Amino acid sequence: MKRTTDIIVRYAETDQMGIVHHSVYAIWFEAARTEFGKEIRMPYDECEKRGVLLPLISLECKFIKPAYYGDVVSIKIFVEKMTPVRFRLKYEVTNKNSGELLATGGTSHVWTNKERRPVNLKKNHPEIFNAYANTIE
Amino acid sequence: MKRTTDIIVRYAETDQMGIVHHSVYAIWFEAARTEFGKEIRMPYDECEKRGVLLPLISLECKFIKPAYYGDVVSIKIFVEKMTPVRFRLKYEVTNKNSGELLATGGTSHVWTNKERRPVNLKKNHPEIFNAYANTIE
Amino acid sequence: MKRTTDIIVRYAETDQMGIVHHSVYAIWFEAARTEFGKEIRMPYDECEKRGVLLPLISLECKFIKPAYYGDVVSIKIFVEKMTPVRFRLKYEVTNKNSGELLATGGTSHVWTNKERRPVNLKKNHPEIFNAYANTIE
Amino acid sequence: MKRTTDIIVRYAETDQMGIVHHSVYAIWFEAARTEFGKEIRMPYDECEKRGVLLPLISLECKFIKPAYYGDVVSIKIFVEKMTPVRFRLKYEVTNKNSGELLATGGTSHVWTNKERRPVNLKKNHPEIFNAYANTIE
Repeated sequence: MKRTTDIIVRYAETDQMGIVHHSVYAIWFEAARTEFGKEIRMPYDECEKRGVLLPLISLECKFIKPAYYGDVVSIKIFVEKMTPVRFRLKYEVTNKNSGELLATGGTSHVWTNKERRPVNLKKNHPEIFNAYANTIE
Repeated sequence: MKRTTDIIVRYAETDQMGIVHHSVYAIWFEAARTEFGKEIRMPYDECEKRGVLLPLISLECKFIKPAYYGDVVSIKIFVEKMTPVRFRLKYEVTNKNSGELLATGGTSHVWTNKERRPVNLKKNHPEIFNAYANTIE
Repeated sequence: MKRTTDIIVRYAETDQMGIVHHSVYAIWFEAARTEFGKEIRMPYDECEKRGVLLPLISLECKFIKPAYYGDVVSIKIFVEKMTPVRFRLKYEVTNKNSGELLATGGTSHVWTNKERRPVNLKKNHPEIFNAYANTIE
Repeated sequence: MKRTTDIIVRYAETDQMGIVHHSVYAIWFEAARTEFGKEIRMPYDECEKRGVLLPLISLECKFIKPAYYGDVVSIKIFVEKMTPVRFRLKYEVTNKNSGELLATGGTSHVWTNKERRPVNLKKNHPEIFNAYANTIE
């Protein structure tokens, strides 16, 4: 299952090179995770309320073509892998109008408790685990 | 004429106080200006292409209630005043779900050329001037 | 008492107008508050550890001249007013090299507990109150 | 040759997890590149004035331990590889006080002209090429 989130590029997201600053893509990936969580009826704010956090352990991004102020970008997201304690997502950013691929990326996460210690999500919060794991084809 | 832009609060927009960081409201105001420009068929990226920039000369914001991750906020925007060289906008931020007023703000701008020197917009770009001025009731 | 914090302008702080984005000044003001707290031996992270937060209730900024990538800017900060529950600071941003005034600003805050309810700081945390109040000339 | 840049963690850089948001590390890497350029007497703003830009083509980051508001972090940077058109840097982020490694990262760049088309830096701007290439041990 893939989920697509559309984002209107903000002026503040550009830099003096005239393109979106590279640090912004990680924020867009996160916004896509937020929408993905709503889609599968397990919103991330609900996870946090249940005491489950999802910090990153790694991030990668390839920048293929720039995004510009005024563009609408589409962020495709899907779960690549899920273990009882870890979580791996992949992303594709395209220009919504032209369909051109702008960037690809990935994030790896660990499920933790509020003290940011790893938890076995499958055992302790199977409803969260299954909501995400069931999206893998 | 008022225009409302809805924004989904991003995780990156929160700080360790657990609320949206105050610097983010200026970015939301700007996102609302972007949508307002499209609404009146004079998008800001089009203004820049015609050589007209709109830097801020002042910003104010009152923070009434916090916004949280997961909220949808509505930004109402309207033009308060317009002279041939200056531009004044006001903003109201509400929680879309509860209708509660979260913040109010204002920005003052000067119309400039690409070298950021003030221009008489009414004289040099009447089509841009009128698009914005006509929204004042 | 005034305290000056020097900041090297980051590339990510610029926008496609080629200048520092206006939302960044609020972040610089906050960085200046951090350094001010250390100077008076009452760092803000220490205040938070004691259960005292300092959310903003208002922000204003006037933008006089742009700041550019590569600039060093100096943020002067001083306490304008302090009551048992409220706190008002003012800021001046100058280009460190040329001495030119780039921006001025102000922030108003309320002292709160961890649940963000106002507290009488003078009564409940006189050591914090005095550290800040004693800087007013 | 390694160069270390110290950065005081800003409050705005934290998120509601109580730690520095992962998107911030790319901004710190960039701040380290800025200081590195000054160190080798080829500041990046000077490169841009000569018509040479340095957009990213990829970014990776591993997050080992969190950084917190109030921390001073040290960013070590070094050039891993340089070809006539490409540039590869690596980074280590440590807590300055404890010496603990917080994150590692890498960025790949392409040297371009102002239209963001790749240029042969070695041929067209040997003084810039050599300034960076000479730092490789």
